[in-house]
Amino acid sequence: YKLFSKTEKSLVSFIVPTFLLIIVFTNCVCTMLDMIMGHHHEALGLHYVMFLPTLYSQCDREQSKKWLPLATSFQALGTYAQTELGHGTHLRGLETTATYDPSTQEFVLNSPTITSIKWWPGALGKTSNHAVVLAQLYTQGKCHGLHAFIVQLRDMDTHIPLPGIDVGDIGPKFGFSEVDNGFLKLDNVRIPRENMLMKYAKVEPDGSYLKPPSAKLTYGTMVFIRSLIVGQSAFSLAKACTIAIRYSTVRHQSEIRSGEPEPQILDYQTQQYKLFPLLATAYAFTFVGQYMSQIYHRITGDINQGDFNELPELHALSAGLKAFTTWTTNSGIEVCRMSCGGHGYSCSSALPDIYAEFTPTCTYEGENTVMMLQTARYLLKSYKQAKAGQQLSGIVSYLNEMEQRQVQAHPASARPTVVDINDLSNLVECYKQRAATLVDLAARSIQQELQKRRSQEDAWNNSAIDLVRASDAHCHFVVVKLFTEKLSEIGDTAIHAVVSNLALLYALHGITQSSGDFLQVGCMLQISVRIKELLCQLRPNAVALVDAFDFHDKKLKSVLGRYDGNVYENLFDWARRSPLNVFVDENYFKKHVFSGNELFRPDL
Amino acid sequence: YKLFSKTEKSLVSFIVPTFLLIIVFTNCVCTMLDMIMGHHHEALGLHYVMFLPTLYSQCDREQSKKWLPLATSFQALGTYAQTELGHGTHLRGLETTATYDPSTQEFVLNSPTITSIKWWPGALGKTSNHAVVLAQLYTQGKCHGLHAFIVQLRDMDTHIPLPGIDVGDIGPKFGFSEVDNGFLKLDNVRIPRENMLMKYAKVEPDGSYLKPPSAKLTYGTMVFIRSLIVGQSAFSLAKACTIAIRYSTVRHQSEIRSGEPEPQILDYQTQQYKLFPLLATAYAFTFVGQYMSQIYHRITGDINQGDFNELPELHALSAGLKAFTTWTTNSGIEVCRMSCGGHGYSCSSALPDIYAEFTPTCTYEGENTVMMLQTARYLLKSYKQAKAGQQLSGIVSYLNEMEQRQVQAHPASARPTVVDINDLSNLVECYKQRAATLVDLAARSIQQELQKRRSQEDAWNNSAIDLVRASDAHCHFVVVKLFTEKLSEIGDTAIHAVVSNLALLYALHGITQSSGDFLQVGCMLQISVRIKELLCQLRPNAVALVDAFDFHDKKLKSVLGRYDGNVYENLFDWARRSPLNVFVDENYFKKHVFSGNELFRPDL
Repeated sequence: YKLFSKTEKSLVSFIVPTFLLIIVFTNCVCTMLDMIMGHHHEALGLHYVMFLPTLYSQCDREQSKKWLPLATSFQALGTYAQTELGHGTHLRGLETTATYDPSTQEFVLNSPTITSIKWWPGALGKTSNHAVVLAQLYTQGKCHGLHAFIVQLRDMDTHIPLPGIDVGDIGPKFGFSEVDNGFLKLDNVRIPRENMLMKYAKVEPDGSYLKPPSAKLTYGTMVFIRSLIVGQSAFSLAKACTIAIRYSTVRHQSEIRSGEPEPQILDYQTQQYKLFPLLATAYAFTFVGQYMSQIYHRITGDINQGDFNELPELHALSAGLKAFTTWTTNSGIEVCRMSCGGHGYSCSSALPDIYAEFTPTCTYEGENTVMMLQTARYLLKSYKQAKAGQQLSGIVSYLNEMEQRQVQAHPASARPTVVDINDLSNLVECYKQRAATLVDLAARSIQQELQKRRSQEDAWNNSAIDLVRASDAHCHFVVVKLFTEKLSEIGDTAIHAVVSNLALLYALHGITQSSGDFLQVGCMLQISVRIKELLCQLRPNAVALVDAFDFHDKKLKSVLGRYDGNVYENLFDWARRSPLNVFVDENYFKKHVFSGNELFRPDL
Repeated sequence: YKLFSKTEKSLVSFIVPTFLLIIVFTNCVCTMLDMIMGHHHEALGLHYVMFLPTLYSQCDREQSKKWLPLATSFQALGTYAQTELGHGTHLRGLETTATYDPSTQEFVLNSPTITSIKWWPGALGKTSNHAVVLAQLYTQGKCHGLHAFIVQLRDMDTHIPLPGIDVGDIGPKFGFSEVDNGFLKLDNVRIPRENMLMKYAKVEPDGSYLKPPSAKLTYGTMVFIRSLIVGQSAFSLAKACTIAIRYSTVRHQSEIRSGEPEPQILDYQTQQYKLFPLLATAYAFTFVGQYMSQIYHRITGDINQGDFNELPELHALSAGLKAFTTWTTNSGIEVCRMSCGGHGYSCSSALPDIYAEFTPTCTYEGENTVMMLQTARYLLKSYKQAKAGQQLSGIVSYLNEMEQRQVQAHPASARPTVVDINDLSNLVECYKQRAATLVDLAARSIQQELQKRRSQEDAWNNSAIDLVRASDAHCHFVVVKLFTEKLSEIGDTAIHAVVSNLALLYALHGITQSSGDFLQVGCMLQISVRIKELLCQLRPNAVALVDAFDFHDKKLKSVLGRYDGNVYENLFDWARRSPLNVFVDENYFKKHVFSGNELFRPDL
């Protein structure tokens, strides 16, 4: 590999802490489990990630005394059963019921319909003997919405399902094949009143209901998990880039100049154009993930002081960025895989696994389109406040500037057309203007719908495409802004130069990908020429930039992405060790295949 | 489902023949095998698709007499060994050697390096006892390039590999898990002179070499296979759309208007915006696939008459369209999968398999970027001819128009800015202008590079991004043109109206996706509003439009995409039948998991 010579080491030292932070946050549980328990952590993943934390945060004192010792000693193995066959992101639609019976002081749990069967919870199919079940609480003839209940599923000794519990595996999936995602059908399952998690809401022995003190408390967890997913995006994309870029210096193919040896495929402009913008994206998302966890921890401090001011902005931002980063990473991993040619399809590249493991993030913890629309709701609310003359603070404050600018009649024509495309602050400004324009467009679309006498809800749905575009532009602006701000923290000038080029490539490439939007706000120049120059400038440091992610070969698990570049010999070696290549009885073929001509039987 | 009422049946009758044609071409071999041999055709797929056809087309009379009976009786089970560990699309780079030894009248085959090991051929790992091996032919001290040799790999009786043959499976892959893709290392393997396929090129007993009569003969097969892949794209995308659109009418979620029941998710504008452009694309690619096979068969007739005139255009078009349609379909399938929410990840949706089986088309039979550059080479050649005043015919003739138009100084400003966005011929014109502009831009980029005194080859590589963009625009223009032309064949006015809306959506959506390009050629108006109207107009017929693809439930193999819409019950049923849910020894858990506490051992 070409190395980053003197500056590499300091680049590593700059990136590594950033990355460690991400790793700590995104993979904390997995890494912990990896260390403690080897590779078979999946079946117990939900016990650590959802069951235990729920007990810790929602048990009252009595409940903690009973359940925590059982759970931490693994006598009670648990999972978290929320989604149902017919219901996912829209929580209010869940159908499972928990009806209080004061005569026995028990809750009676039921799955009243096919669509109400719990579906997807990990570790439910085979592993768990308990679950936290989310159900609509009915007491004294009234429904009080979703609450959490501890339900024992299986005998703690024999592991046989208890009466009324129909539980099993939901069958094979794309990715996560190791996890026993399960179903759970409840038929008049009775649990003691004390099994409702009662730290906040309560049901008294007589059946009277006490409301929780605040509804905002659940926001924090969602924000936390979504910010972890942003970090996970950076992490997965960095892995994929590491493999593809390293392998692109090992693989030689075709010819650029006739008669000369086959060049490294990373010397092809098209290959650089596939991979370098993704590399820049991996860096960008790393910084965004870092920012998200910092701000989360700062705001958590505020929340503990009773200050909820910044929570709505963070909540909206985490939703949009979760969608923005997972979508980009999802398609980016596949670009990396396909950029490795045929060998990218081999599991030896690790890329198929990286994709299959990553892709569910686009759906879980909030389906991406729904997430984008959540962010849009916040943007539109802020837009209205700005229109009403309110001074906005935080990231959406640009909506105020737009308001001021609109005093001029035609902002687009009045704006200077000369944009210095090498000045990142100029580009941040372009992204900001684009975001403001698209928020404005979405708001106008809703306005037009309302003028056609549509209801508020229909106007919203009929403008949903524009709303998603506005959220996307907002998130893109935030990412470019954070990447740019990060540069000021880099002291070493050589590293600063390289990372600045990455930031520039990220910003300019994004502009060309949505060139229509940017043309409308007046910035689009010789960008494509500049992008080609940047590809050339980044080429010598490309491998160093992925080495700086500092993935150990054991973590990367990729023959194509090996640090030492010794790909082909190890690929041959890896294939030889495949189970299909271990000793085969020499008479196997004759005995089992040719005898009776089974191979050609029509309905084998 | 909402049905297409009266017109549905005639829509089916219009689409079905089109689709049957595609199916016949794309799945001919698979379907045949399906019928003859049940589902276990994969291991013999290569025998039918590559080994037998190669024998038929490249054996001389003597060889046919010997090999065809062996192969058709399945005594010789064969595959086609071309790609190597270090070499794929660039055929000239292959390293396997076949050196003629006149003293024994044998060829000696060798894998001289690690990178020369044959890698990826299907059915090589375990199934085949013979292979057609592509190798560099050396005789009388000279290399004559790649030729095909029949090499026996295994004993035909015991199936044990012969001396000098190191053969095995290459290990797990993304998709194609049933196929034993293999490796083959040759160590001084001697085969008789008669095992070189000698219909065209020959080696005489004394070692003298006779050249084949024409090099163009191999073009035909490549064109044929690539046009099949275009049809396969249509087929796979149609399947994915059928599943996603049907399921989107079964799934209810959230609320549009508060208090009303949860709507079908297909009523959300964002869901329509994900799926309807893909539905339109599936129709578009169906017509393109149909066109490709028609033109292939017409030109094949010409070739048999010795007329090679149209072959270069078809060759260039098939390369670009192969890349264009497979890339679009590849990402489209994933959009369909994710549009089904969580259940899209379940194998019960069939979408994970559709993706894993389809995605290799982006790489095999010519890596897509290389394909795009092949088309670009033809476009640039045509562009130069047009510049030189030559009158072009066929699909590239628009490059002549551009030449004429450039007599005006500023074509963009001279063009009328009012484009009727409901007139498809107008939109075809926009796509044509965009293609012409991007071909021109790529040519100028090369020119500028040459002016910087770069070599022709470097100028080409330094303009590769522009060249790929030009090819992409050319292909997009061809697809819009063919879709538009197809409309004139539809007699029924109701069907014409619906399919016209699909064509319009395809064209307009494409414009918004590359809005920068289209703004530069002067056409971009109230397109996004029109797209939203089209989504509404297509909504009532969406299910009918996928039903018209006429996939039988047995072919679709998707619980989510069932024709009868009875999804949830069948999903529960499907899960129950999963191997993990069949009878489990009630003491299993206690005996094997808890005893010895294996579950928690660190390095299980």
